[in-house]
Amino acid sequence: MLAAQFYGRNDIRLDKVEEPPCSKGKIKMRPAYVGICGSDLHEFTTGPVLIPKTPHPITGSKYPVTMGHEFSGIVVEVGDDIQHISAGQRVVVRPTIFDKTCSSCTSGNQHCCDNIGFIGLSGYGGGLAEYIVAPAEHFYPIPDNVSLQSAALVEPLAVAWHAVNISPFKSGNNVLVVGGGPIGIGIVQVLQVHGAKRIIVVEPMENRRRLSKDFGATHLLDPHNVDVPETVLRLTDNIGVDVIFDTAGVEVALNEAIPACRTHGTIVNVAVWEKRPAIRVNDLMYKEVKYMGAALYDNASFEDVIKAISYGQLNPDKMVTSKIMLSEVVEKGFQSLVKNRDDHCKILVDMQVSRDAGR
Amino acid sequence: MLAAQFYGRNDIRLDKVEEPPCSKGKIKMRPAYVGICGSDLHEFTTGPVLIPKTPHPITGSKYPVTMGHEFSGIVVEVGDDIQHISAGQRVVVRPTIFDKTCSSCTSGNQHCCDNIGFIGLSGYGGGLAEYIVAPAEHFYPIPDNVSLQSAALVEPLAVAWHAVNISPFKSGNNVLVVGGGPIGIGIVQVLQVHGAKRIIVVEPMENRRRLSKDFGATHLLDPHNVDVPETVLRLTDNIGVDVIFDTAGVEVALNEAIPACRTHGTIVNVAVWEKRPAIRVNDLMYKEVKYMGAALYDNASFEDVIKAISYGQLNPDKMVTSKIMLSEVVEKGFQSLVKNRDDHCKILVDMQVSRDAGR
Repeated sequence: MLAAQFYGRNDIRLDKVEEPPCSKGKIKMRPAYVGICGSDLHEFTTGPVLIPKTPHPITGSKYPVTMGHEFSGIVVEVGDDIQHISAGQRVVVRPTIFDKTCSSCTSGNQHCCDNIGFIGLSGYGGGLAEYIVAPAEHFYPIPDNVSLQSAALVEPLAVAWHAVNISPFKSGNNVLVVGGGPIGIGIVQVLQVHGAKRIIVVEPMENRRRLSKDFGATHLLDPHNVDVPETVLRLTDNIGVDVIFDTAGVEVALNEAIPACRTHGTIVNVAVWEKRPAIRVNDLMYKEVKYMGAALYDNASFEDVIKAISYGQLNPDKMVTSKIMLSEVVEKGFQSLVKNRDDHCKILVDMQVSRDAGR
Repeated sequence: MLAAQFYGRNDIRLDKVEEPPCSKGKIKMRPAYVGICGSDLHEFTTGPVLIPKTPHPITGSKYPVTMGHEFSGIVVEVGDDIQHISAGQRVVVRPTIFDKTCSSCTSGNQHCCDNIGFIGLSGYGGGLAEYIVAPAEHFYPIPDNVSLQSAALVEPLAVAWHAVNISPFKSGNNVLVVGGGPIGIGIVQVLQVHGAKRIIVVEPMENRRRLSKDFGATHLLDPHNVDVPETVLRLTDNIGVDVIFDTAGVEVALNEAIPACRTHGTIVNVAVWEKRPAIRVNDLMYKEVKYMGAALYDNASFEDVIKAISYGQLNPDKMVTSKIMLSEVVEKGFQSLVKNRDDHCKILVDMQVSRDAGR
């Protein structure tokens, strides 16, 4: 079967690989839609980062690995012992892989597992292939009213949902979202569902600002044109916002956000940083601001997002700015995202069309 | 009267200044013991930092200012309208000055006041003078069984008390204290009062480590001799500590402490940083560790420390490593702390002996 495999920086190839057999405790699925994520891009431009160079402690895989960790599909076969899911069911994949034995896992925080892995990065195959076989726990049935396309967006929305969920955000709060990429826009949606008062998005790219507005941002700031802390203070009666979500991972953007936070407010880091930021710690301290990390999502958040889409609370379809074929994944997927970042929010690979078209 | 005045970096002079008159709403006090603090030292070596170069928005003062903000003394006169304190009473001074109108003050966080000032740094005089006159709210009577010497340590202990108090620390927790200076040692004492399990102190200086132990540290780490995160993990069943208090403000020490924190643990910054640290934010994030600032102390913490000394829970006298005269404050105070930091924990200026000896 065909699979998009990561061989190294700027080297993702469509390979013929062996079709994996289903077995006990596992599920075999045909991917339908696969999103390309910021982490995928990061691997493409500067990897291997999360992709293992030596055998992963849980999966035993190292690169070349099949990519694609945001994806939905249709079950084609289940292991003999699997009762709760059957062939033909529409599902979404939770890619996070845990060892279940480390202190994080045994204290109820599997998503902070010391040896965390990801389907589509660390082994067990990935979404960018004709078939995938993985342990049954990774497959979540989706309700009839949730499209396979929407389901491919559950994973990035779960990141957003979890970040809001573990933050001290409360209905009626004023919030600043730093960065209007897919995660930032996901957070805007989740904040709207949960009753934020002002949702201020700071983002230098025009299309991303526009899309943030479509999803519920109440104020849009271009950091190249306005003084961010001054504007935020003006918009919040000189108090500052209650919570800041940093999805950008840019030092100057974080340091500009700090004075925009109210005394005893919270900054939630959702970004993966390429280098350690030199943070205005004294300013955090004098206002007793908390700076906390939100990592991925727990299983409950993943399920909550599926429900929220089904209930019509989240409508992520508009995040999809283009759909491409598997054969186009490097050129119209990875390379396009690198070159024209502001033209895209989420690019999906349509695996069904690819299959029907024989590519 | 004589007063130690800050004129600039490395320039603290004993000046003859006018004796301040008492007036309505104010209290006039004769300082007894005055501690020299890390912030004082910071002003001496690299100031003016907190000392105002332009008139302070609340006090209207700028340097030269009288120094000394950790001090006890005896009331000599009170304004006509003051009922709750009378001449002859033994008191300790809370030096923090608030504008009471900013959003921090009106939301109940006066200690995070936008315009915060300090007696002994920002005006209203200071402890290193024969007399001080300041608004009555700054003076707290001390119980009979609390010595004037112990009372001079209430201020730094209030910093420690508040930091523990606003942290998620709970009885039975394991804790890492980074830095064994006066604030670190204060935190060790407060943690012991509140029932910490393991109190691990990382401190490169030998005397400070020894003193930490005298006050209740259960494990002492010299960061030049051991791998800090590895040792902390070994001491905590491979889980990491629940809370870290950083009193050092040293980038490498903070970054070494991060992997010693458990998943969902908290790092409390109590240090004032000379430059912005480049922090291992990704490591904070993957373990969803909170990094929070603790600034000074609220008024309740200041009173709680007075009570804790009176109840015998805190016995800070051993922190006093030398007592000097006012005339010696530069040479045996500031300069000695700069040159021989490890020889001292807290140096007190004994204002009573100074007065009796005429210097």
